[in-house]
Amino acid sequence: MKLDFKEKSPADFFSENMDVCGFDNPIRAIYTAVRELLENSLDACEAADVLPKVNLEIRKEGEGIYVIRIEDNGPGIPPEHVPESFGKIFYSSKYVMKQQRGRFGMGGTMAVMYGQITTQRPVHIVSMTEKQIADLKIKIDIIRNSPITEPENIWKAVKPNDTGKQGTTIELTLEGNYQRAREKILEYIKQTAMIAPYAEISFTEPDGSKHLYKREVEYLPPIPKEAKPHPRGVNLELFRRLMAKDPRSKVSNFLVKAFQSIGRKTSLEVLGKADVNPDKRVNKLGSEEIRRIVKSLRKHKGFRPPDASSLAPMGEEMFEAGIKRVLKSEFVKCIQRPPKAYEGNPFIVEVAIAYGGEIKVKEGEIKLYRFANRIPLLYDEWNDVSTRVLKRINWKRYGVKPGDPFAVFVHICSTNIPYKTLGKEYIANKPEIRREIYMGVLQVAREMRNYLNKLERKKKTEKALKTFMKYAETLTSLLSEAVEGINQDEIKGKLREIIVERLKVNEQ
Amino acid sequence: MKLDFKEKSPADFFSENMDVCGFDNPIRAIYTAVRELLENSLDACEAADVLPKVNLEIRKEGEGIYVIRIEDNGPGIPPEHVPESFGKIFYSSKYVMKQQRGRFGMGGTMAVMYGQITTQRPVHIVSMTEKQIADLKIKIDIIRNSPITEPENIWKAVKPNDTGKQGTTIELTLEGNYQRAREKILEYIKQTAMIAPYAEISFTEPDGSKHLYKREVEYLPPIPKEAKPHPRGVNLELFRRLMAKDPRSKVSNFLVKAFQSIGRKTSLEVLGKADVNPDKRVNKLGSEEIRRIVKSLRKHKGFRPPDASSLAPMGEEMFEAGIKRVLKSEFVKCIQRPPKAYEGNPFIVEVAIAYGGEIKVKEGEIKLYRFANRIPLLYDEWNDVSTRVLKRINWKRYGVKPGDPFAVFVHICSTNIPYKTLGKEYIANKPEIRREIYMGVLQVAREMRNYLNKLERKKKTEKALKTFMKYAETLTSLLSEAVEGINQDEIKGKLREIIVERLKVNEQ
Repeated sequence: MKLDFKEKSPADFFSENMDVCGFDNPIRAIYTAVRELLENSLDACEAADVLPKVNLEIRKEGEGIYVIRIEDNGPGIPPEHVPESFGKIFYSSKYVMKQQRGRFGMGGTMAVMYGQITTQRPVHIVSMTEKQIADLKIKIDIIRNSPITEPENIWKAVKPNDTGKQGTTIELTLEGNYQRAREKILEYIKQTAMIAPYAEISFTEPDGSKHLYKREVEYLPPIPKEAKPHPRGVNLELFRRLMAKDPRSKVSNFLVKAFQSIGRKTSLEVLGKADVNPDKRVNKLGSEEIRRIVKSLRKHKGFRPPDASSLAPMGEEMFEAGIKRVLKSEFVKCIQRPPKAYEGNPFIVEVAIAYGGEIKVKEGEIKLYRFANRIPLLYDEWNDVSTRVLKRINWKRYGVKPGDPFAVFVHICSTNIPYKTLGKEYIANKPEIRREIYMGVLQVAREMRNYLNKLERKKKTEKALKTFMKYAETLTSLLSEAVEGINQDEIKGKLREIIVERLKVNEQ
Repeated sequence: MKLDFKEKSPADFFSENMDVCGFDNPIRAIYTAVRELLENSLDACEAADVLPKVNLEIRKEGEGIYVIRIEDNGPGIPPEHVPESFGKIFYSSKYVMKQQRGRFGMGGTMAVMYGQITTQRPVHIVSMTEKQIADLKIKIDIIRNSPITEPENIWKAVKPNDTGKQGTTIELTLEGNYQRAREKILEYIKQTAMIAPYAEISFTEPDGSKHLYKREVEYLPPIPKEAKPHPRGVNLELFRRLMAKDPRSKVSNFLVKAFQSIGRKTSLEVLGKADVNPDKRVNKLGSEEIRRIVKSLRKHKGFRPPDASSLAPMGEEMFEAGIKRVLKSEFVKCIQRPPKAYEGNPFIVEVAIAYGGEIKVKEGEIKLYRFANRIPLLYDEWNDVSTRVLKRINWKRYGVKPGDPFAVFVHICSTNIPYKTLGKEYIANKPEIRREIYMGVLQVAREMRNYLNKLERKKKTEKALKTFMKYAETLTSLLSEAVEGINQDEIKGKLREIIVERLKVNEQ
């Protein structure tokens, strides 16, 4: 029995494992393709500080064959990077440490590959940068993990850009089941608009129906900056990589330069506990010393919280406004938790709760909206870290039960969202993240309880006022019989004032 | 704003995305590492037709640091393949179309990489093939996706094998939380023994406690053969790849040779419907013709079912025996569905149901055991295709409700299990597979209903018999007073016979 050892290219590997990237079947595949393209467009605009305007269109080309066309007003992709950006797995502009929707840098290429596998058609890209327009068709040589362009020499398809416009337009042909994916695609676009109210998104369905989400806010959230790793939860591998970039520094200076949230004092303290000479050069450290430093970093408690400049949370106000606009809830409360870190990655959790309005809940369930770096997550929620948190909460203590008309919203922002699938369907159970979600949910749940209690008291008060006023009516008319010349309305008014005053005291 | 385009090696990419491979945190990581190593050992033995004997040991090395040691009696890995098998992502002997536990060919390397990232220690491999022993330490150059061996020249660590033994021994040091992973690891080994009763597995815990699963069956299931793809659900990419291997054949012969389950008649019928000349050479086909052939293949209804020789299901008897041994249930029923295919991949679903015995069920839940190619799946069950099926069943019709002491077992065998995560946690929602599970569950649920009905009737019968016999007693004694010389015992016996006969008729 001889075993056959083989090496595969990344493209070859993923072409045989499309399921792990969200291309399980024609329904999920068309949904995932739309998602990946839309997310790339929004990321491109935001990175370039441009208010996004995205036109999305799906056309039917044949039985079960669709064309997705997407056009954005981003900065365009430089012609020399176009072929590999769409035709090579593990080639991307997303491999930097800051908050962005793209995480794996492979979604666009996977969509192109899925289109090619199911229809054998190339993707058509028109990229307009400030100075150039590139108009290319791209297929993937899957065995070699490399792009095949038409024309072969891309510079034949590049001309000067004198239109004054910038942006990228993509036309992708693929097999799909639009009818069955429709509901999720519409929901995805709606929730994207909710969490990116500064973007204008138009969508034309295959039957011609149009959906337009206008811009609601005329400014972009602050652009996240590239971050240094936070020392909390750092591992040996990352530490060695950072060392390799700065081998000649003294280790005490190295710690301050390589990490965020470490000052000179902390650096010396950490090294002291690790029993390492702070003046030693980084490239002179022995492997035992390195191990001790990492251990000491991981045990240290007093780090400053992570710098939030690499993150772009929604903000409580904008998040609440977004929810109110879409769900018309009577009560909405959002809270933003302070920045934390897991495994060196800064993150911020925002949690909101809404009660009433157009919230539709199934019997015995809790409605959960999940967002990660402004991406709505619609599939595979059952194993998600947020779902795990909601299951553990004793909702009775907060005056509600599963099935009541309330909804929980969780938005996780991080330089590195720990998705469990390459299709970005759900988030891993990281203790640090779980804890922040838990704390956030408790906070907003308490606010909801207060609101519901107040509502309850208000109802009681109104009922009580009504009853009292009936007695007051009777009382006044008896009085007017006994005492001459009395002003009934005046007395009723005064009685009412007194009662309202008393009830208000009770309402506190 | 300039974007920074970068290419990453597969190892580099996955070193930053360990979550998608099942290495989310120290609990899950040690569990996943044990799994991947144990699965590789069992695959190696079975592929070589050897009854597996695996010794697994976990030792504590320091605070949160463990060594996993695994030793098997498989054929060993040829020395020249050892470094890349453990030190290069996308290099494997698993890239063939047959049933095996390994699916992505990356689990072993991921475990090595996780160990390296968390402890910087190399993995230690001793591979004993028929003629050679290789004793190597391996680390991974993550940026380059290539192994670093100690010694550098591996042949210095190879000597002749005169021990008469074969097998592979691996010692891997990694960060982990054994205490919290313990329960899942024990459950995993127990269920593995249940579904591979021909394997001897011993496990020694860090505290020295030993678990031994002895061999229960002295023969291996038939070794699955490498298969050709089945034409059902074939896509254009796969079709073109097959064409490239056999460009000079006539297309009618090509279809018969390239696919399983296509004979000459079917080939001509498919090509007729596609309006393609059957005598045309494969390399002369135009892209429109190719598209038509694939369409015609996908529409064709009359293919023979897939050849099951690439699959190795448990078999109804062995599956039932395994369940009975572990759960001691009063009632166990297994059925094997006929072979089917999805996207060209043959598969067989086996479904079992058990009632009573040591089944522990939580309030309102249905106990589900999931297996895929003889691997127990213990995590992330909520999004699994089998869980989806169970939710849709109206259990009341089968005489039970969620929370009753019954359990469902689903075993999916395929040349290509459509996992949704690279950590092989749960299975994608493929309509063909879902349907087979559904049909299987209905079948065994009906059997359970019959069993429960019979049980119910038996109880009633026994009660009725008791009542009748009381009357018979009285009757006989009255009779004996009235008629002289009567044999009371004889009459009672006869009455009993008559009653039992009547009740039996009712029991049918």
